[in-house]
Amino acid sequence: MALIVQKYGGTSVGTVERIQAVADKVKRFREQGDDVVVVVSAMSGETNRLIGLAKEMQDQPAPREMDVLVSTGEQVTIALLCMALNERSCPARSYTGTQVRILTDDAHTKARIQDIDDENIRADLKAGRVVVVAGFQGVDDNGNITTLGRGGSDTTAVALAAALKADECQIYTDVDGVYTTDPRVVEGARRLDEITFEEMLEMASLGSKVLQIRAVEFAGKYDVPLRVLHSFQEGPGTLITIEDENTVERPVISGIAFNRDEAKLTVLGVPDIPGVASKILGPVSDANIEVDMILQNIAEDNTTDFTFTVHRNDYDRALSILERVSSELKAREVQGDNKIAKVSIVGVGMRSHAGVATKMFGALAGEGINIQLISTSEIKISVVIAEKYLELAVRSLHSAFELDEAEVVQES
Amino acid sequence: MALIVQKYGGTSVGTVERIQAVADKVKRFREQGDDVVVVVSAMSGETNRLIGLAKEMQDQPAPREMDVLVSTGEQVTIALLCMALNERSCPARSYTGTQVRILTDDAHTKARIQDIDDENIRADLKAGRVVVVAGFQGVDDNGNITTLGRGGSDTTAVALAAALKADECQIYTDVDGVYTTDPRVVEGARRLDEITFEEMLEMASLGSKVLQIRAVEFAGKYDVPLRVLHSFQEGPGTLITIEDENTVERPVISGIAFNRDEAKLTVLGVPDIPGVASKILGPVSDANIEVDMILQNIAEDNTTDFTFTVHRNDYDRALSILERVSSELKAREVQGDNKIAKVSIVGVGMRSHAGVATKMFGALAGEGINIQLISTSEIKISVVIAEKYLELAVRSLHSAFELDEAEVVQES
Repeated sequence: MALIVQKYGGTSVGTVERIQAVADKVKRFREQGDDVVVVVSAMSGETNRLIGLAKEMQDQPAPREMDVLVSTGEQVTIALLCMALNERSCPARSYTGTQVRILTDDAHTKARIQDIDDENIRADLKAGRVVVVAGFQGVDDNGNITTLGRGGSDTTAVALAAALKADECQIYTDVDGVYTTDPRVVEGARRLDEITFEEMLEMASLGSKVLQIRAVEFAGKYDVPLRVLHSFQEGPGTLITIEDENTVERPVISGIAFNRDEAKLTVLGVPDIPGVASKILGPVSDANIEVDMILQNIAEDNTTDFTFTVHRNDYDRALSILERVSSELKAREVQGDNKIAKVSIVGVGMRSHAGVATKMFGALAGEGINIQLISTSEIKISVVIAEKYLELAVRSLHSAFELDEAEVVQES
Repeated sequence: MALIVQKYGGTSVGTVERIQAVADKVKRFREQGDDVVVVVSAMSGETNRLIGLAKEMQDQPAPREMDVLVSTGEQVTIALLCMALNERSCPARSYTGTQVRILTDDAHTKARIQDIDDENIRADLKAGRVVVVAGFQGVDDNGNITTLGRGGSDTTAVALAAALKADECQIYTDVDGVYTTDPRVVEGARRLDEITFEEMLEMASLGSKVLQIRAVEFAGKYDVPLRVLHSFQEGPGTLITIEDENTVERPVISGIAFNRDEAKLTVLGVPDIPGVASKILGPVSDANIEVDMILQNIAEDNTTDFTFTVHRNDYDRALSILERVSSELKAREVQGDNKIAKVSIVGVGMRSHAGVATKMFGALAGEGINIQLISTSEIKISVVIAEKYLELAVRSLHSAFELDEAEVVQES
């Protein structure tokens, strides 16, 4: 008998029928003898409907009122799921963020959880009830309703699992686990039984989008075993584990992430003096443009080239900002390209294995793919290539690192 | 500068445009220098939508979860109205029932208000904010969300007005006040400037339906001046006053109420022994049929006739119950008629004026209208007549009591 926290997202509770299917699933866990706490999101479409209403009222709705508004979405779902569970003779009780007392700071629309009062939930579990908690929401010290920002239901689930010292936190999604890469691109893409938190973080931020990054960080920090599963298909999913140096050797590379929504911009011939980088990036971030990769190589003739990547939607705005900045800095030229893609190999194993980069670059060269930018972290190597080569690059890397084999072969 | 509590019902906040119109109206009061607390219902249709979802989940949804569900309706409205007010540079802050702390008992779906914490509201008013409160909802001692039952937003408004000692509680509706009778039936029907709480209670329960009865009772009990006004038309509305015996003489009759949804049932030749009335009505109320008028005249030959009226929709069920009961009681016969209507004259003035009943019966007789049943209370006389005479009866009474005159003439 285990204590399990389960989280079902908006698509999993998007219709009356799906909420009923979730109730069936929860009941099966209860029948196995598990204690279950369920965290749910708003029914899909509901949050956007509410935001649409808000925008009709005010150009920039007050964040406090926005939270009052959108938090109703999850409140509807918790009540409906409890009714469905009760109908199945599975006693259940719902809690809003305020009712649990999920205490957050007062940063409306992007609040952070500070404390969770688990007293009521424990009493309900002891009484044999399923506890259904509204995801994504909390309450501040003054009783104001707060929300954790989009996707915050994952964070709620992990935080509850941590507070309750749950045996597992299960995140139900529309995929049956974390894959070595996107199965739509590589036919032989394989579901991973396990992945480390660090790898997952790199995969998520690279666009794998299975889990909210903050939830993964949170789970890592509080040692919550996290499992990603499919809402309506059976299967073990993928367990996200704490890296343990004593475990058997791990595969060098766990997966290949990619992102085709990128654009790169380069300022050429920038005077190589202190403060230049911030003079270039300052106006970009002031315009609320998020920057992904940043590269600057060594200077030659007292000038250097400064490159960064942004989301493709921000390309035009970033370019016109750079034109202005570069003339102020007396840089030589601004270049840009929005037909690029980023491909990354991720794996904790690469720390202790030489030759991973060589193998990656070799595989790409073998296909005649030119590498435009390279950036590395401890457990990740990213390259930027022309977008047209993206699928070819992912397939060749997937094969080079033998990810599509049933048995992963260790490199030496 | 006054403190005003305003309540807008579901129709008044039924669309984005109407919420914006309410915001405009509230702003005008603020500009006059009034402090304003606004109580709102769910947008029209929303509560029914939520109840529909609930019914798909569970035949008889758990009342606690029902309250969690439907209370989201008002929560959406308070946020949207605050945004609309903020957009108009009219600072506003929303409160759910939990956030105000409208403490109720734990009778989910029909809770009663026990206490209101006015501290936060007073602080906001002092800071120059409009306070927007979700109607219809509260919280019990254990933090469970409760609702006051349908129409409970009126009660919320009156209770807040009482707690805040507001100068006036304004109920905005789709009529511009309380009329001497239904203007659709009598062309000369006149809006009353004032009506007493007692008269209003009789008018409401007789089907005038302008205000929820509980709210009127509450306002009377706590001496809250209550005013009924039209949401989107200008006008003074009708003030519902505490009767003051020292004020100038009031008109004998304030208005004429009627109800065409009635049916009458009579058990003839009932043995005149103790306990018969409850043996007849017991099974009727067990079947959840609401009984309106009840009449029993003196016995003759040791038997009596027992008559009562029910809603027309319940007529067939009530009739079949009576058939069974009457044979058990060895009564002679059951008769019924569902083509009847009830007409009532209401007025605190009739207490001190003789001849009101005579005048009423005379007016009806003058039109050749037969009176089937008569029932009286201190400030009301009701008669049941054939439905086909309803309009004729109301018009002749309206004229007999000179209600359509600009100057109401006193009887002697």
